[in-house]
Amino acid sequence: MRTSRLEAFSDGVLAIIITIMVLELHVPEGPTLEDLSHSATGFLTYLLSFVYIGIYWNNHHHMFQLVRRIDGTVLWANLHLLFWLSLYPFTTAWMDETELARTPLIVYGVNLLAAAVAYYVLQLAIFRAERPDSLLKDAVGRDLKGKLSPVLYLAGIASAFVASWLAVAFYVVVALIWLVPDRRMESYVAAHGLEA
Amino acid sequence: MRTSRLEAFSDGVLAIIITIMVLELHVPEGPTLEDLSHSATGFLTYLLSFVYIGIYWNNHHHMFQLVRRIDGTVLWANLHLLFWLSLYPFTTAWMDETELARTPLIVYGVNLLAAAVAYYVLQLAIFRAERPDSLLKDAVGRDLKGKLSPVLYLAGIASAFVASWLAVAFYVVVALIWLVPDRRMESYVAAHGLEA
Amino acid sequence: MRTSRLEAFSDGVLAIIITIMVLELHVPEGPTLEDLSHSATGFLTYLLSFVYIGIYWNNHHHMFQLVRRIDGTVLWANLHLLFWLSLYPFTTAWMDETELARTPLIVYGVNLLAAAVAYYVLQLAIFRAERPDSLLKDAVGRDLKGKLSPVLYLAGIASAFVASWLAVAFYVVVALIWLVPDRRMESYVAAHGLEA
Amino acid sequence: MRTSRLEAFSDGVLAIIITIMVLELHVPEGPTLEDLSHSATGFLTYLLSFVYIGIYWNNHHHMFQLVRRIDGTVLWANLHLLFWLSLYPFTTAWMDETELARTPLIVYGVNLLAAAVAYYVLQLAIFRAERPDSLLKDAVGRDLKGKLSPVLYLAGIASAFVASWLAVAFYVVVALIWLVPDRRMESYVAAHGLEA
Repeated sequence: MRTSRLEAFSDGVLAIIITIMVLELHVPEGPTLEDLSHSATGFLTYLLSFVYIGIYWNNHHHMFQLVRRIDGTVLWANLHLLFWLSLYPFTTAWMDETELARTPLIVYGVNLLAAAVAYYVLQLAIFRAERPDSLLKDAVGRDLKGKLSPVLYLAGIASAFVASWLAVAFYVVVALIWLVPDRRMESYVAAHGLEA
Repeated sequence: MRTSRLEAFSDGVLAIIITIMVLELHVPEGPTLEDLSHSATGFLTYLLSFVYIGIYWNNHHHMFQLVRRIDGTVLWANLHLLFWLSLYPFTTAWMDETELARTPLIVYGVNLLAAAVAYYVLQLAIFRAERPDSLLKDAVGRDLKGKLSPVLYLAGIASAFVASWLAVAFYVVVALIWLVPDRRMESYVAAHGLEA
Repeated sequence: MRTSRLEAFSDGVLAIIITIMVLELHVPEGPTLEDLSHSATGFLTYLLSFVYIGIYWNNHHHMFQLVRRIDGTVLWANLHLLFWLSLYPFTTAWMDETELARTPLIVYGVNLLAAAVAYYVLQLAIFRAERPDSLLKDAVGRDLKGKLSPVLYLAGIASAFVASWLAVAFYVVVALIWLVPDRRMESYVAAHGLEA
Repeated sequence: MRTSRLEAFSDGVLAIIITIMVLELHVPEGPTLEDLSHSATGFLTYLLSFVYIGIYWNNHHHMFQLVRRIDGTVLWANLHLLFWLSLYPFTTAWMDETELARTPLIVYGVNLLAAAVAYYVLQLAIFRAERPDSLLKDAVGRDLKGKLSPVLYLAGIASAFVASWLAVAFYVVVALIWLVPDRRMESYVAAHGLEA
């Protein structure tokens, strides 16, 4: 089974998720800067989730450059990832409308964590489908960032019990870590003379 | 006529359906877990419909790997299927907002049934367009799952008159049956050395 | 300039238009069939607009099978068509919420007419871009249906002043005329041994 | 890294942005032309933003015809552009609902400006990725329109302090300037016998 339609479908879903979040940004009630300022939290949480979906798209893109063979399990592992990502507009909006209250922050962190786990499961499903010679497995290597993220999400979730801004800080830090594109794939492609 | 644009369009519609359903998930009124718990039914019905759309995308994907030739009738049979699937957000939201009341459960079941019939009709249209040598027809074979689903939907609809949870149980069972990917296509492709 | 990205973008926009219309279908207020019956007009107008968008996708698909060369003017003529089509959710919702009042019916008819004119203009732009040897121009021929539709839309608009149902009837008739796929393209492709 | 998936994802996001703006067009309260007339501002601002997104899609399309090589920085520069464009529905709706009040007009202008800057940054990122032999750099040349637009946006923002209609006029003028498709790319492609 080729990956082109899985990629196209994932692109479609991610494009929609990243865009409909803006529909949750309520238009200010009045015409002043003061009115607009009430959208500040909404704007920043939108930005954060936009970056997160961008990261997933980016990594998904890089990952599938090295995938040659998939099966039904990979299709479902991919849908599983998309499911958790599709909840971002919901958890983001809740976090925004409660002005970063504790429980919504925790739930958002759980959502981030679930997506990270789903991404990891997707990777495993691909390794299995491509057994025994997965280029991806070779390229992923020790996967430091992938292993660090869940830890930081958990730290963020835990710190929400102490202070909201601390939880937000953890979530922002993970995003920043990933903003640096995943060069492993690029260098692997370059080093092995592969062309996706 | 080639199938690539039909597949791309279907991917687009399915990606949108699966994603906009999340817009029907109302953001909790307050910042507590208690508030979030009111979204539990919404979350579970969203999950169910997400899985159903995922199943259709999955089977659609598998099916069109074996389709070589389509005509105008297939295009319309495909749109007919997409029409019924596009109503999922509507019937899902009604079921959710009425906390699984009887009539909405029945209407949801009718929607599931209509989509299943439309999928069957699409298959027939493809058989006809590819006559006399449809690979798909060959691969589909006796189509046990395809014939069992409508029966279970009808049982679900009927059981809604007895108890809501029974209807839900039937709808969940059909989803579980299909979660197992349609390996007929995969094995057919493998056995006949075809590459989609 | 190749047509693939224009087709992909159009597919995306049409897929979204056809799907977001369902968001205008308000979830019934209560859990009874009586409550659902209030959605009847909404359901039927949704069906009508779904079929119309389906027709445009279908014809667009057929048309671009014969297009080999486009330019900037074609891109804008295509966006012009998409603009009018993007208003369908708006005019459909107005028609629905006013229970088929006269003015909304007229405005819907004007929207249908504007899209038909935009489609015609797109065709002319393609003829010009492919000058002097447009396969499409050859295949379109006398374009009876294309010339009949605007007349019927105008008749529908005019008849809205007499009776709502008459206007609806005209709009439904045009849809039925087009539901028969545009076989000119298919037969042209077949007759000339072209493969899109 | 090839550009096909970046283009597909961008097409998806742009298609969604251009289409969901119509959801911000509120269905008139009553069934008369008088009721519809309240949507006039909404219709015109929708048209303006539709044209702007159309321009970006158009230029994006032309630009990537000449791009052969991208890297992770280009992916993020592209997402950065999409981020600002994704705010158009929000700033457009605010401008519309306040009937073109001063602050919303300024914010809309800032949004236009930010997108223009993001587009410019994307171009630079592409030049860098394709170093030393960027066809795009060669084709873009002096980029008069690209340098003029930000100036006009700033003039529009400034003039909003004087009169609303003047700001709108500036924004409309930039759109008109760009409506003329970017023939530099087309002529470059033609002149150098390239085929995208």
